[in-house]
Amino acid sequence: MIKVGVVGGTGYTGVELLRLLAAHPAVKLTAITSRSEAGLRVDDMFPSLRGRVDLRFVTPQEAALESCDVVFFATPNGIAMQQAAALVAAGVRIIDLAADFRLRDPAEWEQWYKIPHAAPELLAEAVYGLAEVNREQIKTARVLANPGCYPTAVQLGFLPLVEAGVITLDHLIADAKSGVSGAGKKAEVGNLYSEVTDSFKAYGVAGHRHLPEIRQGLARIAGGKAVGLTFVPHLTPMIRGIHATLYARLSREVDLQELFETRYQNEYFVDVLPAGRVPETRSVRASNMCRIAVCRPQGDDTVVVLAVIDNLVKGAAGQAVQNMNIMFGEEETLGLTALPVSP
Amino acid sequence: MIKVGVVGGTGYTGVELLRLLAAHPAVKLTAITSRSEAGLRVDDMFPSLRGRVDLRFVTPQEAALESCDVVFFATPNGIAMQQAAALVAAGVRIIDLAADFRLRDPAEWEQWYKIPHAAPELLAEAVYGLAEVNREQIKTARVLANPGCYPTAVQLGFLPLVEAGVITLDHLIADAKSGVSGAGKKAEVGNLYSEVTDSFKAYGVAGHRHLPEIRQGLARIAGGKAVGLTFVPHLTPMIRGIHATLYARLSREVDLQELFETRYQNEYFVDVLPAGRVPETRSVRASNMCRIAVCRPQGDDTVVVLAVIDNLVKGAAGQAVQNMNIMFGEEETLGLTALPVSP
Amino acid sequence: MIKVGVVGGTGYTGVELLRLLAAHPAVKLTAITSRSEAGLRVDDMFPSLRGRVDLRFVTPQEAALESCDVVFFATPNGIAMQQAAALVAAGVRIIDLAADFRLRDPAEWEQWYKIPHAAPELLAEAVYGLAEVNREQIKTARVLANPGCYPTAVQLGFLPLVEAGVITLDHLIADAKSGVSGAGKKAEVGNLYSEVTDSFKAYGVAGHRHLPEIRQGLARIAGGKAVGLTFVPHLTPMIRGIHATLYARLSREVDLQELFETRYQNEYFVDVLPAGRVPETRSVRASNMCRIAVCRPQGDDTVVVLAVIDNLVKGAAGQAVQNMNIMFGEEETLGLTALPVSP
Amino acid sequence: MIKVGVVGGTGYTGVELLRLLAAHPAVKLTAITSRSEAGLRVDDMFPSLRGRVDLRFVTPQEAALESCDVVFFATPNGIAMQQAAALVAAGVRIIDLAADFRLRDPAEWEQWYKIPHAAPELLAEAVYGLAEVNREQIKTARVLANPGCYPTAVQLGFLPLVEAGVITLDHLIADAKSGVSGAGKKAEVGNLYSEVTDSFKAYGVAGHRHLPEIRQGLARIAGGKAVGLTFVPHLTPMIRGIHATLYARLSREVDLQELFETRYQNEYFVDVLPAGRVPETRSVRASNMCRIAVCRPQGDDTVVVLAVIDNLVKGAAGQAVQNMNIMFGEEETLGLTALPVSP
Repeated sequence: MIKVGVVGGTGYTGVELLRLLAAHPAVKLTAITSRSEAGLRVDDMFPSLRGRVDLRFVTPQEAALESCDVVFFATPNGIAMQQAAALVAAGVRIIDLAADFRLRDPAEWEQWYKIPHAAPELLAEAVYGLAEVNREQIKTARVLANPGCYPTAVQLGFLPLVEAGVITLDHLIADAKSGVSGAGKKAEVGNLYSEVTDSFKAYGVAGHRHLPEIRQGLARIAGGKAVGLTFVPHLTPMIRGIHATLYARLSREVDLQELFETRYQNEYFVDVLPAGRVPETRSVRASNMCRIAVCRPQGDDTVVVLAVIDNLVKGAAGQAVQNMNIMFGEEETLGLTALPVSP
Repeated sequence: MIKVGVVGGTGYTGVELLRLLAAHPAVKLTAITSRSEAGLRVDDMFPSLRGRVDLRFVTPQEAALESCDVVFFATPNGIAMQQAAALVAAGVRIIDLAADFRLRDPAEWEQWYKIPHAAPELLAEAVYGLAEVNREQIKTARVLANPGCYPTAVQLGFLPLVEAGVITLDHLIADAKSGVSGAGKKAEVGNLYSEVTDSFKAYGVAGHRHLPEIRQGLARIAGGKAVGLTFVPHLTPMIRGIHATLYARLSREVDLQELFETRYQNEYFVDVLPAGRVPETRSVRASNMCRIAVCRPQGDDTVVVLAVIDNLVKGAAGQAVQNMNIMFGEEETLGLTALPVSP
Repeated sequence: MIKVGVVGGTGYTGVELLRLLAAHPAVKLTAITSRSEAGLRVDDMFPSLRGRVDLRFVTPQEAALESCDVVFFATPNGIAMQQAAALVAAGVRIIDLAADFRLRDPAEWEQWYKIPHAAPELLAEAVYGLAEVNREQIKTARVLANPGCYPTAVQLGFLPLVEAGVITLDHLIADAKSGVSGAGKKAEVGNLYSEVTDSFKAYGVAGHRHLPEIRQGLARIAGGKAVGLTFVPHLTPMIRGIHATLYARLSREVDLQELFETRYQNEYFVDVLPAGRVPETRSVRASNMCRIAVCRPQGDDTVVVLAVIDNLVKGAAGQAVQNMNIMFGEEETLGLTALPVSP
Repeated sequence: MIKVGVVGGTGYTGVELLRLLAAHPAVKLTAITSRSEAGLRVDDMFPSLRGRVDLRFVTPQEAALESCDVVFFATPNGIAMQQAAALVAAGVRIIDLAADFRLRDPAEWEQWYKIPHAAPELLAEAVYGLAEVNREQIKTARVLANPGCYPTAVQLGFLPLVEAGVITLDHLIADAKSGVSGAGKKAEVGNLYSEVTDSFKAYGVAGHRHLPEIRQGLARIAGGKAVGLTFVPHLTPMIRGIHATLYARLSREVDLQELFETRYQNEYFVDVLPAGRVPETRSVRASNMCRIAVCRPQGDDTVVVLAVIDNLVKGAAGQAVQNMNIMFGEEETLGLTALPVSP
């Protein structure tokens, strides 16, 4: 059994992680920390866990995280980078669901996150946990940077096109739509039911923190070539789900359907739809699947890719468990085979 | 492995049943029938099943249902009663998710469902599949009547009070609220998104078909005493979930919290909340749980019970699988332990 | 033109009031106060008002409220009672959308609102603004207590039955469902989109502040007789709307349909539906209408009344404008005739 | 008073038109036709109109439409083109909310709508009712083609850029999101609540009928230059609202904010937001407003325009009333000044 600790289990990625870990056959959940909620039963905060998670939130001191095999950080940005070094030194492997280890360049991190990076030496060794690209490196990672939700959908959508070198890279467009759970469980007016329901808006148009993460990932896939990207995220009145609509210009003829099917034929969690179908976010709800369609409207040279994930699963907690499975030599799908919930 | 056939898998209880059966470790899914969709891949209709259900809809003739161990009917009312006799004669056990075998009295059935009952002899032997009441009889049932969604929530809510004889039975009130999936997948204007969203209404106030089912169940629990019940169902803008708010007048003093906790202490799928808590439907979403709270507002002699289920799971497909487990000697919880999806 | 000031225009009842007042032909909106937002353009907070409300939030000091004809308080409970006396002394009439002047008895107010009442002398003269009951007194009111949202729906629903003396009063049941905007615009986790969507729950079961208000109102209508009431409010995933489902036991035979139609035949804002119809909350969305149906399921002696309003309009801002119209001798419907928005 | 007839008032654009016309001070509503519902009271179908529309649906024969001043067609595509000639000959002016008169070229119409055009001679004289472009021609139109919902938002968003000639026209991208009411009131499984809620998907990617309409409109604005456009519509879980996210490449430097503000400074129904703000669809809900923001993420040469409308108002019924006002010499805003409903 993998001894697992969770730091910061009070948000939506936290409770989703607990949902998955509590049913995972190879996991022993040993501690869930929360400074603010220490002492509270976890299932008092999350009644959906009643009967399944028999733990209380504890302080980091009580948690004895150094005796865990792996610690998940489901914390705000800026926490994991402060605690990772000590845990790694104690032989604990780290999976950070926040952004602390996603950007390679500490200067870029500081530019977007507005504080200096606390562990630049770990940044260098951290592995970016997009298994469909980095599976080998993930196996031995000590510090794993779990990808952001938008970056997961956008990168998986562009990946076959960029790898195959069939599009121009200077003016990519990612028009992405997210459910509201992506904004977290913070008590902010903008996320209130009556603010968000029956409405639709863009946000972060001038510059969203996932922009440099996507750009870095695509550039790596492109073998280091620079990538020009316009990224516009939108808030959609649904709880879960990300839908990325991607636009690129083809630089040469290619069988798009075959390209995508071939690239993902061995990827359990990426499902390329038959030609002519479009993915719905609900077809992946509560599951770790990414479904993708590719098309070329009116036969023009603009290719359109549609990629959907559940932002809390493949976009966060599920992908983190997938990474844990890889890191600990388990079946990659272990604990992640519950079917999507639809309707 | 239990060889399972499904008749009528194109509705919401159908796809929910497939979701559960496809992940059930003791089930071999052999055939899914649909006259109208015969030949279509099941996952073409339900992309959420892609990679998990590798079957096509077949006609009843092609299905060879008589070689199954059990056949689920996820059909409209009036179908199972026509096909059950032949299957039972062939040694196949039947689990009907529709209403065909729920009412004991063929005359009452005809009064509410407007057609004569086609198999009154099976009606007499059919077992009402509310495991928390009838577990023993379910074990050997040849024809199992899976309870309706409202009746499940309402009966589980009133059960401890009626069994203990602590309320007057002549003026019970069940004010019940259901998500829209309870109305099924029929293409009707009344169930369109724009008709139902951001609105709330009662329906079936003059008389809903679940009324006689609840009345019959409560009367049986009451040892045959007549039960007076006003039942008002409401349509709520959510996909899944039933919330039953039940009102009764206490006839003698009793520790309500203890009564409920004791009655349900050995029931895995019924969770009595601590005093002072109220259940939310989302705390059981996509799971087979029923959560219940009981209270006595302002210390008056009116007792209020709040009971929530997912109408597609404990109110339909999940309860059907629970019954199958009991009928075939499996662990009652097998294949039903995925945690609720929340948020 | 009626010179109008608004105290506390930053919440949902505030913006709804501004929506109605900005289009009201007899109103000149002179000041909107907010301590926290002073200086901010009102339409910066509420883009829906752009081009229609050309004011900034001001401090109470800048507002010169004493020169208004009427001041609306769209504030939290406990504010209006502190400021009302000075304004009344200056000849300004007060319409309080909060609860400060709703309960006659200062002791009961203190019991439910947990602070002593600051203006018990005004409490005595305050008029309860349910025009369908108190129209005459409203005309001359100096301090008007605008009814709560639940109390409006519940009282209008029970009113004909109680006035006619055809039900027993000791065990009334009001099972009420509200949209989320009723909880206000406070940044609280419980009102986040992801907490409330696709879920349903009761709250305040042990005792909600609208209980004594309803009980007081019904007792007054009953000529002072005591009223026993169980009131269970529920939170429904919709923005606007209250649906009250009311249960009472008939004490004598009566033509319920005729009783309701006759009682409300001259009330513009109360619409009794034809027999057999049920009201939907969306049929009153964004309007000041209350729609009501009455029925007697299965011919039993339990009468069921269904009443719907928009909690922000007839349940708050619209009713306040209706009261203003009455107080200032305008047509009662002035500025309130925009049709409901449906779908 | 303008004598108004409505053909086909049973859908969502129909009831929205009735909502607006019933409150319009210069309109006398004389007949609403529906073959299928003839004889039914209009407010029996639409309870939101109770007390405000005292008409029954009538057959076209009973309607005496030739005595109207104007007839609105809120019918499916293909109806208006059959009836328009006779009405025009009788001196009645036509406003078609369907697509029959939107495309100039009968061959292109037939290509996209799959039936030959029944009135090509009227097609030639029909005026495209986008007042912000064609106000003068609208004044004297006998046959007015009311623009589609997507085309309204997309054209208003691109308009200043195309008119000013500051973008390249060969690879425009319109990523558009619509509420579900845009799909109409047809009883189709795809529009059921449980199919659409908590999900997001694209549709019509290969080719949507609004594509040629937008292309034609933009080309006209561009002085006849060809326009290359990729148009991807999406279905969003909300009732009302269209959000168009538009992407174009700048061909020369320009002050985008000033360009947009100047272009729309005299347009009552187009509101250019201050720099840095983004529009929400709810800020125009139930109103005839279009709100627009323009920005240039990261200072790149890709310009992003965000435009929102209510698809049933500015995208259908409201724009139709706006056009009627212009055609009959009324104030353009008459009957269209109710404020947006938010929240």
